[in-house]
Amino acid sequence: MSATTNQRAVVLVSGGLDSTTVLAHAQHEGFACYALSVDYGQRHRAELNAARKLARSAGVREHRIASVNLHEFGGSALTADEIAVPESPGTGIPVTYVPARNTVLLSLALAYAETVRATHIFIGANAVDYSGYPDCRPEYLAAFERMANLATKAAVEGQTMHIHAPLIDKTKAEIIRSGVQLGVDYAQTVSCYQADEQGRACGVCDACRIRKQGFSSAEIPDPTHYRQ
Amino acid sequence: MSATTNQRAVVLVSGGLDSTTVLAHAQHEGFACYALSVDYGQRHRAELNAARKLARSAGVREHRIASVNLHEFGGSALTADEIAVPESPGTGIPVTYVPARNTVLLSLALAYAETVRATHIFIGANAVDYSGYPDCRPEYLAAFERMANLATKAAVEGQTMHIHAPLIDKTKAEIIRSGVQLGVDYAQTVSCYQADEQGRACGVCDACRIRKQGFSSAEIPDPTHYRQ
Repeated sequence: MSATTNQRAVVLVSGGLDSTTVLAHAQHEGFACYALSVDYGQRHRAELNAARKLARSAGVREHRIASVNLHEFGGSALTADEIAVPESPGTGIPVTYVPARNTVLLSLALAYAETVRATHIFIGANAVDYSGYPDCRPEYLAAFERMANLATKAAVEGQTMHIHAPLIDKTKAEIIRSGVQLGVDYAQTVSCYQADEQGRACGVCDACRIRKQGFSSAEIPDPTHYRQ
Repeated sequence: MSATTNQRAVVLVSGGLDSTTVLAHAQHEGFACYALSVDYGQRHRAELNAARKLARSAGVREHRIASVNLHEFGGSALTADEIAVPESPGTGIPVTYVPARNTVLLSLALAYAETVRATHIFIGANAVDYSGYPDCRPEYLAAFERMANLATKAAVEGQTMHIHAPLIDKTKAEIIRSGVQLGVDYAQTVSCYQADEQGRACGVCDACRIRKQGFSSAEIPDPTHYRQ
C-alpha cells in the first residue's frame, strides 16, 4: 500500500513492541502520523514514558496522551490492584484482558482523528499471540470500522474512516523482522506488564515470554533491558 | 417491555433531562441499574453534581464517574475554550457537537457493563431535537450494538449486549410527560450548556431553548432554576 503525504493517520502508540512497529509501518507508507497514547490506569506506566520518546524520535506530527480511568472499573490484572499478573501460560481469555479495551482505545482515536481530520487509524492488534482477546479479531475491527463510518460529522460529510491493523495475522518474529527492516530500535520499547520505572522488564510475565520467544524465533539478538 | 430483576443495566446518566428520564424508564422496566457518568472536560460540570444527586435519589445499585480528557482534543464548543456556545439556532451539525462523543460514552459503558456483568446499556440519545448529531441516529446505535457483540469476553461467552435508546424518536414534550408520569423531579436536572456552579441555567443556549419549549409544549410548568 502507498499513501500520499496528504493522508493523515492517527496511530495508537503504547510504547510497546507492536504499536511501535505499526507506527514505523504507517510512516513508511507515507501517512502524516498523529500519535495517540492512552493512560488508562495500567500498571506498566513505563510504557507511556517509552511512547513519548518513541513518538518524538519517529518525528510524528503530534503526540497526545488521553487519560481515562478504566482503573475505576477494575476487572483486569493490568488495571486492578488485587489481581496478580500471571507468570505461566493459561488457557482461554487471559486475566490480563482489559474490559472493552480496544473499543475504548479506538473510540478515543476516532475522536482525535475527527479533530485533526485524519481518515485512517492504525492499531497494533494481533490475532496470533493474543488469540484469546475478542477485540483483536478481524471481524471485531471490521465492525468497529462500520460503526465509525456512521458515528461522526466527518462520516456524514462523506469522509470514509479506515481502521488498519497491519500486524493482525503476523507472528511476533515476523513483526520484529519487519520492524528491524524499517529501523525500529526495540531497545526503546517496553512490553513488560510489570516494568519498573526505568522501563526494565521482569522477563517472566506473559508479555515478556512472548517477546523473548519472538526475538529468538526471528534470530535477532534481544535488546530488551531486563532487571534480572 | 418488562425485565426480571436479575437483568443488570448500565445507564449513562449526565444529570440532564433526557438521561434522567431514561434512568426512570430503565428502573420502571425492572432493571437493576448501574449509573455511569462521564466527566469529559465539559463546561457544564454542574451536570455531574446533578447526576450524583439524581442517581442517589433514584436508588441505583452503584454510581461511577469515569473521567476522560476529551478536552485535550478540543474541536467542540462544549469542550474547547476558544469556541463560543451559540445563542441562536444554526443549521447543519451544531458546533456543540463533541467529536465521537457517544462512541466514547458507549465504549466506557461497555467496559463498565462487562465488569458488573450487565447485558443492557441505556443512553438518552434523541434523533428529534438533535437531528444534526450523527451519533444520535438509530443506524449508528445498531452498528455500535453489532460491534459490542464482537468486542468483549462476555460476548465470546455468549452474553448478548443490548443498546437501548428509549427516547430516540420522542419529542421533548413527550419525554417530559413520560418522566413526570414516572415521578422524575426535573427541578434537579441540569441541561444548560453554561450552567453556573449551583446548576442555574442561562435560559438562552440551545439546550435551554429546547428544554423551555418542551415544558411549554407539554403544558407542564417549567421547574428549571434560571439565574436571570
